[in-house]
Amino acid sequence: MTARHEEIADELRRAIDREEYTVGSRLPSESELAAHYRVSRGTVRQAVAALTAEGLIGSRQGARRVVLASRRSQSFEELRSFAQWARAMGHEATGHVVTQEYRPAGHEDAVRLQLTVSTPVLHVLRVRGLDGEPVLLERTVYADWISPAVEVIEPDCPSVTQRLYDDTGPVFAYGEHVIDAVACGALDAELLGVRRTSPLLRVRRVTTTREGRPVEWSDDRYRPDAVSFSVHNSIGNNPLARKAAE
Amino acid sequence: MTARHEEIADELRRAIDREEYTVGSRLPSESELAAHYRVSRGTVRQAVAALTAEGLIGSRQGARRVVLASRRSQSFEELRSFAQWARAMGHEATGHVVTQEYRPAGHEDAVRLQLTVSTPVLHVLRVRGLDGEPVLLERTVYADWISPAVEVIEPDCPSVTQRLYDDTGPVFAYGEHVIDAVACGALDAELLGVRRTSPLLRVRRVTTTREGRPVEWSDDRYRPDAVSFSVHNSIGNNPLARKAAE
Repeated sequence: MTARHEEIADELRRAIDREEYTVGSRLPSESELAAHYRVSRGTVRQAVAALTAEGLIGSRQGARRVVLASRRSQSFEELRSFAQWARAMGHEATGHVVTQEYRPAGHEDAVRLQLTVSTPVLHVLRVRGLDGEPVLLERTVYADWISPAVEVIEPDCPSVTQRLYDDTGPVFAYGEHVIDAVACGALDAELLGVRRTSPLLRVRRVTTTREGRPVEWSDDRYRPDAVSFSVHNSIGNNPLARKAAE
Repeated sequence: MTARHEEIADELRRAIDREEYTVGSRLPSESELAAHYRVSRGTVRQAVAALTAEGLIGSRQGARRVVLASRRSQSFEELRSFAQWARAMGHEATGHVVTQEYRPAGHEDAVRLQLTVSTPVLHVLRVRGLDGEPVLLERTVYADWISPAVEVIEPDCPSVTQRLYDDTGPVFAYGEHVIDAVACGALDAELLGVRRTSPLLRVRRVTTTREGRPVEWSDDRYRPDAVSFSVHNSIGNNPLARKAAE
């Protein structure tokens, strides 16, 4: 169940994305928005607070707030799902499983997936392509409780996320991403069709359910000539953090 | 001026960061928070809506909300300022200007800084170090109106951000970051003390004032063995966007 103010926040985000409200323009006043959405001004205020915290709209100037940025961004599902993202961008996504096997959870698997060491977990190495070009290698480890649902998916399924959604309902709700760069190894060079030691953009992520239960963790390596990532931040909300090596 | 609900949202974020409310625990109820901060429940609700949108706290379960994630993150200023970030992490930051000169704004400068082509803008190349090790090369172009304030800063000033703040007051309010990976060139290899062609994490960013006026844009290249970036996202709020090459 999504609260009404969350729905309105999302409608406003989308209106900004569609450039109905362009950067630099003023949002309608609280009372105009309340009348438009047929809700109280308190509900509008809650929605507006969320967008202010995200840095999409600025502080009040007179009676109205100014649009500061568009997200040029994707939904959570579009970020999590390579296939959904590609489709939204007008590209065709492909997927191909290179290896898939159960292995006993090692220490890192156990910590990230909140399992006991040696629990059998499914390891999958996939090549993902954009318009026929390989651009991403995903090395994903699935928690024991979701592994059987992943195991039966055919190796060239273009959207594992969509299939899991269809088969088991919504499972992914939160993600934590650590981004750095690595030199391409011999296997990855062959699979991605790039030179060995060329730079790859690495994203290590853990995705959890709405309750915070880990579903999967993944080491994703992108060809940086094909894919990059962007983040918007503000004084009110800084989702991006710099991390020193430990 | 920060609204009261924004202040309370920030106090709650900090309490979660300090682990006063740990991941998996329940937040106090709305009425408890309202009594604690001496505000109306409506004000608490606005603060809570912002944190829900950020994925820090989950949907209501019974009367209370569950803490889903800590930010393990930095303030906007800590992300913008290498020196402030290093200090917050318990490291010592150094800075050293390699080259600094005015050049006429090129097409890219003009677009990113919203200036006319050929406006003189200050280009600065800095090496930033962490505990004596070079880890970052910053190639920053400053807008014409801020360039004079940057130009006079001594070349080994550890915190240009702090100096600008002291000299001219707060100037940075919003940032847009594009993250990818590049191979290290000959000059960068020498300055960073790494091998040529080794992978570097590149962050290209534009920072603006609260009114959305661009202050600077920068091409920052990090040694990925020393620094990485992290982002938290959720169904309610996805600050991270994947971008295909154009």
